[in-house]
Amino acid sequence: MVDGTARAIQYAQENRNRFLEELIEFASIPSISTDISHKEDLNRTADWVAERLTTLGLTNIQIFPTEGHPIVFAESAAAEPQAPTVLIYGHYDVQPADPLDQWESEPFQPAKREENLYARGATDMKGQVLAVINALEAILRTGKLPVNVKLLIEGEEEIGSPNLGKFIAENKDLLSCDFALNPDTGMIGPDIPSITYALRGLAYFEVHVHGPAQDLHSGLYGGVVHNPAQALCELIAGMHDENGRVTLPGFYDDVRSLSEEEREELARLPMNEAFYLERTGAAALWGEAGYTPVERTGARPTLEVNGIGSGFTGEGAKTVLPEFAVAKISSRLVPDQDPDKVHQQLIEYFETHSPPTIRWEVVKIAGSPATISDRSSPWVKAYVKAAQEVWKAKPVFKREGGSVPVVVYFQEILKVDSLNIGFALPSDNMHGPNEKLHLPTWHRGIEALIHFFYNITE
Amino acid sequence: MVDGTARAIQYAQENRNRFLEELIEFASIPSISTDISHKEDLNRTADWVAERLTTLGLTNIQIFPTEGHPIVFAESAAAEPQAPTVLIYGHYDVQPADPLDQWESEPFQPAKREENLYARGATDMKGQVLAVINALEAILRTGKLPVNVKLLIEGEEEIGSPNLGKFIAENKDLLSCDFALNPDTGMIGPDIPSITYALRGLAYFEVHVHGPAQDLHSGLYGGVVHNPAQALCELIAGMHDENGRVTLPGFYDDVRSLSEEEREELARLPMNEAFYLERTGAAALWGEAGYTPVERTGARPTLEVNGIGSGFTGEGAKTVLPEFAVAKISSRLVPDQDPDKVHQQLIEYFETHSPPTIRWEVVKIAGSPATISDRSSPWVKAYVKAAQEVWKAKPVFKREGGSVPVVVYFQEILKVDSLNIGFALPSDNMHGPNEKLHLPTWHRGIEALIHFFYNITE
Repeated sequence: MVDGTARAIQYAQENRNRFLEELIEFASIPSISTDISHKEDLNRTADWVAERLTTLGLTNIQIFPTEGHPIVFAESAAAEPQAPTVLIYGHYDVQPADPLDQWESEPFQPAKREENLYARGATDMKGQVLAVINALEAILRTGKLPVNVKLLIEGEEEIGSPNLGKFIAENKDLLSCDFALNPDTGMIGPDIPSITYALRGLAYFEVHVHGPAQDLHSGLYGGVVHNPAQALCELIAGMHDENGRVTLPGFYDDVRSLSEEEREELARLPMNEAFYLERTGAAALWGEAGYTPVERTGARPTLEVNGIGSGFTGEGAKTVLPEFAVAKISSRLVPDQDPDKVHQQLIEYFETHSPPTIRWEVVKIAGSPATISDRSSPWVKAYVKAAQEVWKAKPVFKREGGSVPVVVYFQEILKVDSLNIGFALPSDNMHGPNEKLHLPTWHRGIEALIHFFYNITE
Repeated sequence: MVDGTARAIQYAQENRNRFLEELIEFASIPSISTDISHKEDLNRTADWVAERLTTLGLTNIQIFPTEGHPIVFAESAAAEPQAPTVLIYGHYDVQPADPLDQWESEPFQPAKREENLYARGATDMKGQVLAVINALEAILRTGKLPVNVKLLIEGEEEIGSPNLGKFIAENKDLLSCDFALNPDTGMIGPDIPSITYALRGLAYFEVHVHGPAQDLHSGLYGGVVHNPAQALCELIAGMHDENGRVTLPGFYDDVRSLSEEEREELARLPMNEAFYLERTGAAALWGEAGYTPVERTGARPTLEVNGIGSGFTGEGAKTVLPEFAVAKISSRLVPDQDPDKVHQQLIEYFETHSPPTIRWEVVKIAGSPATISDRSSPWVKAYVKAAQEVWKAKPVFKREGGSVPVVVYFQEILKVDSLNIGFALPSDNMHGPNEKLHLPTWHRGIEALIHFFYNITE
């Protein structure tokens, strides 16, 4: 270990308590980007990030307004000008916290229990953003930056980054870099450093089904009107066949197949059926026949009901025949699938299968394609070495089921690869109640990032 | 027309404005029986009814507490003691008012627009309760009661009358009568007086489907977990076949068939496909093959989704794989079907069709069998004559799709028939937003009741 690395790591270890206090402050702001009533909280969070970067000593700190929530930018030059440039991505927005009644502590009052910090956004991804900032601080306070760094922290990831692509396209020079570091993915387990080389895309829709002109008495009209909730159920039920395959017309036409070599590599991941049963608590697993759970979550597309609502679901017995039913339906996409094509396929499915008794709409809410990165770049090699230094283990290469639109933008607009890492664990319950961050893993992650930045120019 | 009738009708016509003012007062109290937070409003409404009956001069006025909402009783003796006794039924509770945003005026601030009074409960059935009270007042103020009357006004009809059966069984002497008058049904149109000789029953259930142990990230776990919203949709979709028939095992086994004579009679009702299309605003009708709309709503059983809910249906795009889905499902029953048997059939359907990937519960919330009344009783004849006097038209005999448990109790416990009439119109939007009462029909209804009471002993 070179002196700079050792000094920076010592600094990080000495400042663990302060790092945690700052994370608690950061995670206390309810920066829920899906909810317009939290607009001011988003602005406050962007300000908080910009102030943190100012304290760090970065330069050219700017808060760019967008049509939605603002983007924070900062940069810092390396000691050697010819050093490579890394563009570090992050997002300061979080998912809604509902269902609130299932949280053991308040989602925006971060609570430390045993080795974890519980808060909405703790792991996705306020903790990850601060891991990078803390690693940079440790280097800057004890030595000199071995690489040029740029930071781009957005506030709309959880709503599909609707304004980020435009911003990147309009600021190509500002953002120019050799590669991007994206710490918004996770590790398989606390002892298994991971590099995510493929991310699924997302196409998110809202489906409306209209039946009668208004809510009806189910006694007076039950038997002559096609219940829109029933009609929507019938349409949703038809979207998968008995083998768990999606039935939208042409849905699998563009799907890039897994090579035998890749299937063998994925088979080595320690995530078998038992792993998924334990993580999910499901009574039995489910999914597309002919693929392993790892393949189904990482390399195969899905169609999911994220929500459905119609009629009366309060206490008691309201005998209503509802006029309307809504569903949120989304597809996780794999390489070569196009979100707009899936939108068309869903419309075509409705055109073919919807009965004449209802009217319907299928609205696209968000969409981004899947990505795959080069597994043998210098940045990947630097991180492999860093991970071995901290965890004494070679990282596994994995596909991730989640969606990170920014990885698409970096590839399509900036023409750079993303190194997708991160310190979220499968048990962190990202997007659900009781989201948490595993603090020992977080501290090791900060040390791995210090190694990584130094390894790039070694 | 005998003098007594004429005087009473003149009285009713002179008091129309006051009758309306009292209805506005009655309908202003939000007596929503499904919602426990309205408990005090229910008590206030019972008090209001008891006061109104006191003003009327009835005797033996009592408010009976129950395990739920109270029951109001009152009686009055006829001039001739050997006159027959009529037990008049009513309910002072109402349905919930949601969806609130679809009301043009506040549901509990009754608003008169053109010939209608808009309010939750205006037609179902506060207006109907006052129609009887007003008719009795007109008779009592201008003459003498030709029949003994007893009134039984309950506060739990909209939740399936859970405490009424016990009350009737425990007060058989108090309630003893020759027949019951139940004004909780309706007319086919403002010029078509109607007698409902058959009412469908109701079996109401709540279905729970549990998938994973908690809400999951649809990217991380989409593809390996059976989405409970999807599973519930698949189960609901399977509950009807391609002919609109319910697929629960044995569902039609006990259904009493329509005779050819009854089918011919029902075919004379002026309610064809166009009628139901106009009333419902549906794009096309739907239902069990082989039966007319009138038969499907009155004489055939149904299975309806009254509500469904799962996951995220707010604004935006939450990528959740929900842990839980719920549906309210109810069956309208026809004579000889048993609500508990239908509960067992629904459980058996789930046992047969639910996949091993989910856990489920089917809870019965309410249930009462269907009823059929004698179409040639003296009371029916008295009402036929009254209707001809007011509307100059012979009433039609119809089956009604709604459920009135009390008619079952009267038949099973008191061993009396119910005369099911009422002045609600199909356009009154009972149970939906903008419920209303057609005032000219209401006033004619009061006059018809005056004729009816006098006709019984003529």
